[in-house]
This record gives sequence, structure tokens and C-alpha cells, in this order.
Amino acid sequence: MEQSFLAWLRGRLRSLPGVAVGIGDDAAIIDCPPGRQLVATTDAIIDRVDFVTGEHALADIGVKAMMINLSDIAAMGATPTAALVTLALPTQAIQDGAVTRGGATETAAAVYEGILQAAERFGVAIAGGDLSVYDGPLSITITLLGTAPTGAGWLRCGAVEGDHLIVTGPLGGSLLGRHLNPRPRLDLVEPLRGCADVHAAIDISDGFSLDLDRLCAASGVGAEIDTAAIPIHPDAVTRSETSGTTPLDHALGDGEDFELILALSDDDWKRFQAAYPDTELTAVGRFIGRTGLWSRGDRGLRRMLASGFIHGGQRRTDGEGDT
Amino acid sequence: MEQSFLAWLRGRLRSLPGVAVGIGDDAAIIDCPPGRQLVATTDAIIDRVDFVTGEHALADIGVKAMMINLSDIAAMGATPTAALVTLALPTQAIQDGAVTRGGATETAAAVYEGILQAAERFGVAIAGGDLSVYDGPLSITITLLGTAPTGAGWLRCGAVEGDHLIVTGPLGGSLLGRHLNPRPRLDLVEPLRGCADVHAAIDISDGFSLDLDRLCAASGVGAEIDTAAIPIHPDAVTRSETSGTTPLDHALGDGEDFELILALSDDDWKRFQAAYPDTELTAVGRFIGRTGLWSRGDRGLRRMLASGFIHGGQRRTDGEGDT
Repeated sequence: MEQSFLAWLRGRLRSLPGVAVGIGDDAAIIDCPPGRQLVATTDAIIDRVDFVTGEHALADIGVKAMMINLSDIAAMGATPTAALVTLALPTQAIQDGAVTRGGATETAAAVYEGILQAAERFGVAIAGGDLSVYDGPLSITITLLGTAPTGAGWLRCGAVEGDHLIVTGPLGGSLLGRHLNPRPRLDLVEPLRGCADVHAAIDISDGFSLDLDRLCAASGVGAEIDTAAIPIHPDAVTRSETSGTTPLDHALGDGEDFELILALSDDDWKRFQAAYPDTELTAVGRFIGRTGLWSRGDRGLRRMLASGFIHGGQRRTDGEGDT
Repeated sequence: MEQSFLAWLRGRLRSLPGVAVGIGDDAAIIDCPPGRQLVATTDAIIDRVDFVTGEHALADIGVKAMMINLSDIAAMGATPTAALVTLALPTQAIQDGAVTRGGATETAAAVYEGILQAAERFGVAIAGGDLSVYDGPLSITITLLGTAPTGAGWLRCGAVEGDHLIVTGPLGGSLLGRHLNPRPRLDLVEPLRGCADVHAAIDISDGFSLDLDRLCAASGVGAEIDTAAIPIHPDAVTRSETSGTTPLDHALGDGEDFELILALSDDDWKRFQAAYPDTELTAVGRFIGRTGLWSRGDRGLRRMLASGFIHGGQRRTDGEGDT
């Protein structure tokens, strides 16, 4: 199968950016411009773990596989270049919306429709990959490569006491549909680089409070969160109508928002706001020297839950208590 | 599981080369030295498609997953830098030699033993990856990154009429054990670059004649093969004792030798032999203008089989006939 599928794919790739040497050799060759470092990330999604075939179109699943990797590239303040796509295709027929796809090649082509859509939208080359047919669920593994200015990738570990805690968009309720077609915040990389030195960044894949907790742990700081300032997505409100939890809880704990959490100095945050007065970026607190996540209430600081989705299928709750 | 496993892994990685930013952030950051391009390849192996758990130790399977990717890097004339490792781990217990591994973490650690061995041996950093637990067979996907001098990667498409057809070592019978611990020919990259302009290269993953056929197709040439000159591995002889085919057939058609096929000009081949008189590299024919694979016999050129392993599970045979 591989050879004929690759011939089809090569035809489809003509509208995408290229690389120095693409699909068809033992490996791809990709330029890394002077003054930049390579950024590389990989993420796999699997049927019945990360999505459910039959409930979602295969093309949408292909889109999602690209977007979650693109979001990691955005969280590094990098620009995406090329993707390597590995598909493990079930021998069994797959339900794709109203269509039953009996062949692995058909399944691959349907998934690739979404991958190519995302690649086109973000100017990413498909530089290589692998295809296997096996007795198992559909699995999509994408390695995404990009570049960032040398020494200036946005890490999790650079937040310092006094930095503003910024979130790039409204949170919560992504399960209502946004989780399938998340918006990697690559659009923010150049605007932010133009007027700020981003001290630390992470994308929200497992939940705002949990991913913030990770950024804080890497930076050796804590955060004081102004919960009233957190932008709540309308989907979080809708979800709360049936979930029994508040919209704020959804905003704090739901995963797959794929917005960024950033640490910016006061000067940089003012400069960014002056340059982009209509920005949807919101300051939702400060990084503090004391570790842990905290919110200020009537009786002083109150320790907050770090809750969210932990890979492996459990929700985590990390302690709670007044101080 | 992911967080605690990554903590263990980070400890184990201390003896390996590092990258600018490794495991633990949203993506890895890797330097690409000036004057070099990035080389990237990805290959997945899956239980009951590419190996059989229970028959082989999990550590050996980890080694193999690395080696097949390292071989692709060697075939580009590149130097490996870093690997991204994605494991899909079965929820079910796995037979690992005499041990039954009940937990996904245990399986991951056993596979990683082999991956780390290979990484150490070839000076490769583990820069990132992903772990999933699912209802399916063990699957290992590795993306290997390396670098090659800009504009000087060894492609499949550069062989010209008159070039020597070189093979880097004895062929055939890899199923007797070598297929599990193949030797990627990274040791040849610098010696060859020192005295030759390699016109074209491919590694033998699916069989000498089939991979040669691919190199010829990419270069738009054919090859005249001196079958008597082909170095035959002792394993090919052993295999032929029970297989019903000749040692030569095993050398021509067995896959997973992971030696390289090279195209070198006469001058470069002489220069290489002068510099490395004890080389195991062997000239086994010439590239010719007429397409197809040919061997010279008593009655002139005879068209040869291009046979080998095609992914998807079938052997291919590509025509045969006198001329």
C-alpha cells in the first residue's frame, strides 16, 4: 500500500510549502535558517483514548492531531516548518460519519484530508512519515518541527515574582466542540516577540490550573490568581447548566483550551497592551515567590485547586486550604 | 503515569548527550550547527506486524526501533542528534522473555532500556516523546533527527551511468537474528565523506534488489549486477539449508540487512579503496543508462528479479526475462 499511497500524497502536497528534500527518500532534509534553533515536539492520539471514531469525522481527527502539536510549537514562541505523520491503520472497517471505510488506504486518505487542511492553514510542509496496517485502533502520531530565534524559545521555567499572569483567550467547555478544532495561538508569536520578552509560556492542554501549576513548578514560583478576571468561554457556561459545576470551575479545570499561559513583566505587558489595545489577552493574576496557586478572598489568600486532566485518564486535585 | 515515568526517564538520560532544551517542556529545542541542514526520519514498529512480543525481549525491540531509524540517517550521509520516542502501551500484560509485565509503566521501562542502549552507543539525545496506554498492541514510533552538510545529503536520485554499484557489507539471512540488532552504517559516513562524493545512497530495509530498484527509479538509471561479486552473509547460507532457496536469493531478496547501497564514480571508488584497503565495501556492478536490473550471463544481459519485502506484508517480484 505504502508506495501507491505516497504517490497520491505527493500529488496532494504540491499546494503546500516544501522542504529541501521531502517525502520519498530515506529521510527528509529541512533548512534551519541562521540565528534560529530547531524546535521539535511529538504527540499521538488514539481511537477510544483521545477521540472516538464514529462520533467524529476522520478529517476532523486529522485536524486535531495537527493542532495539538502546532499548539506546542506556539507555546515555545516558535514558527512551524514541517510535520512527520505516522498512521497506524486498523484492518477493520471504520465508521466515518455516515460512511463506512473498509480499507486502510481509505482511512488514511480521510485522516490526511484534515492533516493537509491544517498544514495548508499554517504553512507547514509534510516532510515524511510512516504507515502501518494492524489489528488495533486508529492511531495518529505527528512530530512537528519548527524554529525559534536562538536562545529565545519560550520555556516553562522563566516566570519570576512580580510577573503578570496572562491568559490568551476565554477558557472552559472545550468538550462542546472546540477540542476537536483547537486554535493554536501561532498568531500571537510575532506580535508578542515584537514588544515583549516572554518570561515563560505553556499551552493549556490539561486545564488552566494544572498547566499553570506545571509552569509554576518549573519556574520555582507560585501564582496569585484573580479568579474574577479569568475570561470564561460561553461553552463553559453552557456546560455548567448540566454538569453541576460552575462556569469558573470549567474554566479552571477543563482541558484542551489550547490557549497560552504567559509570564510577562509589567513593562512588557503595558507595551503589549499599548500596541494591541483590542487584545483578548487578559491579566488574571501575578506570579509570587510563595509556591502554590492562590486566590485572594475576604480572609486573605486561599489555596486553589490544581485540577485538570492527567494523561492516563484521571482527574487530579492537588489540595485545597485556607491560609 | 506520564509525570512519574518522565521523572525516572530524566534521571536515566543524564549519561546521554543533551540538547538545548530536552524533555519536560512543550517541545524540545535543538541546535543546528551553521553550514548544516536538519535531517529527519520517522519509523514505527508494532507488535505482530514488525516483531512479536514473547519471542523477543522488549529491550531488543527498543534497540531495533532505534536502529532502523539510525540506518535511515546513515543512508542520508548524516550524523544523528536526537530522538523523539512515542510509545503506545497495551493495558494487557506482556510476555517479555521469562517475565510477564503487567503494567504499562513496566513495559515502557523495559522498551526504554533498549532505546537508551542504542542512544548511548550512537551519541543520540532523547529529546522528547509521548506515552499512551490503550487497548492495542505495543507500538514504538521514533522520530530521529540529525544533520548533514548543507546541500550534501546523500539522496536516492543522484546515481549516473558508469557509477560503481557498491554494497557496504554481506547480505541475506537477517531473520536469523541480525534483524533485531541491525548495525546502522553511521561508521561509514565520515570515511566516505572524506574521500568520495556519494552520488546516491539507500539503506537495505526491504531487500537488496528491491531497494536497488528504488534507487535506480529515483535516479532514472538501471544497474548491471555482477551476482558473483555480491557478498553473501553466512546467515544466508544457513537459511538456504532449510528454505529451499539459494544463498544468493537470500542475499538479493531478504530484507533488514541495513547495509547501504551506494553509487560512486570510478575515481572516488579508487580513492576510497586506497584510503581503506581493508574495507568490506564491495563493488557489485555498475549503474547503466538502460533502466531495470540486469545480470550478465553467457547469453548476454538477463533481466533480474527485484524481490523483497513490501510493507503491508507481501513479497513482490518484478518481472524476469532474457534480452
